[in-house]
Amino acid sequence: MHVQRVRVVKDALDANNTIARANRADFDRAGVTVINLMSAPGAGKTMLLERTLARLEESPDSPRVGVIEGDVQGSLDANRLIEFHVPLVQINTDPGFGGECHLDANMVRTALPSMPLDDIDLLIIENVGNLVCPAEFRVGEDRRVMIASVTEGEDKPLKYPLMFRTCELVVINKIDLLPHLDFDLEQFVANLEAVHPGIQHLLVSARTGEGVDAWCEWLVGTRQRRAVPA
Amino acid sequence: MHVQRVRVVKDALDANNTIARANRADFDRAGVTVINLMSAPGAGKTMLLERTLARLEESPDSPRVGVIEGDVQGSLDANRLIEFHVPLVQINTDPGFGGECHLDANMVRTALPSMPLDDIDLLIIENVGNLVCPAEFRVGEDRRVMIASVTEGEDKPLKYPLMFRTCELVVINKIDLLPHLDFDLEQFVANLEAVHPGIQHLLVSARTGEGVDAWCEWLVGTRQRRAVPA
Repeated sequence: MHVQRVRVVKDALDANNTIARANRADFDRAGVTVINLMSAPGAGKTMLLERTLARLEESPDSPRVGVIEGDVQGSLDANRLIEFHVPLVQINTDPGFGGECHLDANMVRTALPSMPLDDIDLLIIENVGNLVCPAEFRVGEDRRVMIASVTEGEDKPLKYPLMFRTCELVVINKIDLLPHLDFDLEQFVANLEAVHPGIQHLLVSARTGEGVDAWCEWLVGTRQRRAVPA
Repeated sequence: MHVQRVRVVKDALDANNTIARANRADFDRAGVTVINLMSAPGAGKTMLLERTLARLEESPDSPRVGVIEGDVQGSLDANRLIEFHVPLVQINTDPGFGGECHLDANMVRTALPSMPLDDIDLLIIENVGNLVCPAEFRVGEDRRVMIASVTEGEDKPLKYPLMFRTCELVVINKIDLLPHLDFDLEQFVANLEAVHPGIQHLLVSARTGEGVDAWCEWLVGTRQRRAVPA
């Protein structure tokens, strides 16, 4: 059974890549930079988004942002972002057998007619909370960002290497809790470097706001770098 | 593509249940009670196992325990348990396309020849850290236990309802961090009750040891309840 399942999923990944390229073409036509934001459940993706949208609202030069929220069920995360008046689409992955554990390119494609691509510069896609399968499905994004919470332990890059290897940036979140944990930050960064040499990381507390400026600069910079013709 | 994938996975679930029943028959023959231990990455499954094995070692009346460790890659968790001299098997789910995100019945079946079922009373299977797919695959277990860390937020039962609905016990872990979090324990328990009315929960800090006695009593009690003929 196991071998058969892998083969089928490989076929699904081929189909996924085809649809991801179609999404990519639509994003390019509209000039939209797309971030695929991934993490384990409860690492702080939505709270970082809240802080990010609040920060970007403060400056008239900020890129215009749209958000796609991916969840197994419900719209709790999308509801938390309603106050920011950005285009917001909720994808639920649960029509199947208890909920898909990741977003795929076709799910994102299904959401695009509801997202006014011509009116935004930056699309942030908050994936389903999971450190395995989201890394396997491209959705047409420019950049992949991962949030790792310091409460999860320093061994996570070694245990979920594909996720840490597939990202351009790791946001190390909840650093306000460091004094209360046995977490070894130096060891975490060494583990990160072992699975993804040279990868950039940022130290952030979405709760206290520490490091959120640097994160927003990275985000805006990504958009600007993309806008410069090669 | 999406509809086709769901159908294929449903077939895989049927096959999975067939193998789970075969595992179950083997466990019954050997008189072994089996716990499927699930959580998000970094919620504290392995640390709770460390505390559990240490506690059970202290009493000569304790059930004899075996452990199966499920991880995408590596044997970091199994290595942490070596000092306890219990039968220990590591399953890696990564022969596929980057790692399966859950254990299935066939993976557990593959591990059974390495596990001396006749020499143990209680088999604890530590699943891959993930709140979605592990809930969908029975492996032949008697009981499903979930660990929810207070650092993950009080909304998790509403966002991952299948996981919380499929368990007989939720261990609420890392309660030593409560003074440093905005976590609303009462709201979490209300959310838990909303998706799984009447489910039992225990408050635990694997780090400080608080609540570990009650957890071990539950575990030993599960074994004893099962041993009484119906």
